[in-house]
Amino acid sequence: MDVKAFRKLTYGLYIVTSRSGDRRNGQIANTLFQVTSDPLRIVVSINKENLTHQLIYESGVFAVSVLDVDTPMTLIGTFGFKSGRDIDKFENISLKEGKTGCPVVQDHSLAFLEAKVTDRVDVGTHTLFIAEVVDAEVLREGEPMTYAYYHQVKGGKTPKKAATYLEEEKEKDRGKGGILGDRYECKVCGYVYDPVVGDSDAKVPAGTAFVDLPPDWVCPVCGASKDQFDKI
Amino acid sequence: MDVKAFRKLTYGLYIVTSRSGDRRNGQIANTLFQVTSDPLRIVVSINKENLTHQLIYESGVFAVSVLDVDTPMTLIGTFGFKSGRDIDKFENISLKEGKTGCPVVQDHSLAFLEAKVTDRVDVGTHTLFIAEVVDAEVLREGEPMTYAYYHQVKGGKTPKKAATYLEEEKEKDRGKGGILGDRYECKVCGYVYDPVVGDSDAKVPAGTAFVDLPPDWVCPVCGASKDQFDKI
Repeated sequence: MDVKAFRKLTYGLYIVTSRSGDRRNGQIANTLFQVTSDPLRIVVSINKENLTHQLIYESGVFAVSVLDVDTPMTLIGTFGFKSGRDIDKFENISLKEGKTGCPVVQDHSLAFLEAKVTDRVDVGTHTLFIAEVVDAEVLREGEPMTYAYYHQVKGGKTPKKAATYLEEEKEKDRGKGGILGDRYECKVCGYVYDPVVGDSDAKVPAGTAFVDLPPDWVCPVCGASKDQFDKI
Repeated sequence: MDVKAFRKLTYGLYIVTSRSGDRRNGQIANTLFQVTSDPLRIVVSINKENLTHQLIYESGVFAVSVLDVDTPMTLIGTFGFKSGRDIDKFENISLKEGKTGCPVVQDHSLAFLEAKVTDRVDVGTHTLFIAEVVDAEVLREGEPMTYAYYHQVKGGKTPKKAATYLEEEKEKDRGKGGILGDRYECKVCGYVYDPVVGDSDAKVPAGTAFVDLPPDWVCPVCGASKDQFDKI
């Protein structure tokens, strides 16, 4: 079995949000598809440990924002690598309240869907939420962010709790950056600076060694300074 | 509700095959994702009317081939717009027999997965098959075909029985080709020649009117001749 085969599957990148009573939260998800066209239903796989899972489970509603290809790593980092139990993810985020009462993220969103859960399937570490779509809107034209683009161009990683996390990713991160120098990992959030990739958000071209990054460069995911990085 | 929002969701394009006893078949699917990483499980949505659905239902096994970006419309047409009840879809297709006994399509395939069904979820017109992956292999390097590329570059359509079929697609097909001339529909398979898109498989550039296609041009999906097309 070669788990690299899983890397050939194609995904988009979405922010899934929910609200239960006064509590609200959101998280990055890539495992989402339309499940039937009549009625219009979608399915999403969410890790049971996540706060967003708890809120969807309690309220039976969620919203999905489709991220565009220019989404910065700071936005993905906030919703993908941090927990709503520690921070308010919606600080400085442009929101509207949807029909279901869920906060709908507008930043870098091409479109959104809102849905009511009709069925829950326990699949071990995750729950599949099958849901009827009750509202949908296109916000602007543009190219959607794909999971492949996030990995290849943005240098993004997959959190351990994601449905699509693969052990080989960990191995890859232990590798060396080759003639361009070593990779460096952020001690705060786990982001890995790879000189082969650079940092497109900060206009750092591919091929830039970590030691050649400007002194005021910060982690594109969490904003930590250079001295918070360890060579890996 | 604006159903065009669903067009912003990202998918790959796959051939899903199965075998039950002596019968075998395969079909195009785009609604597939990895559902957990431990154990390695995937989920796919398949229309209940399809022969492939019947075979997966009976045998509990299926294989997935990940199509590459250069996959010709003839291959997509055979597996996406024809029924295995009428033709043998595997004629002239390069196959290997997988661990599960399923025929695994090798043509234009970057990778394949084989899986055993662990759970079935009835979602109305479709069944969600949740399955543990028992084999996976990368066949070659290359870019995967995406659903967006299939629609935008190849001029592909969505069959009515697909999970992601939307009524607006039908409306769009009724439109006119504008200053480039009318669209023409194949009476045999339903493929629509759109002069805005052309036919990349036959090296017909975008902007070519139907009347200017060479006399020996044939339907890229089913091979029907020009006189089998009706203006729409």
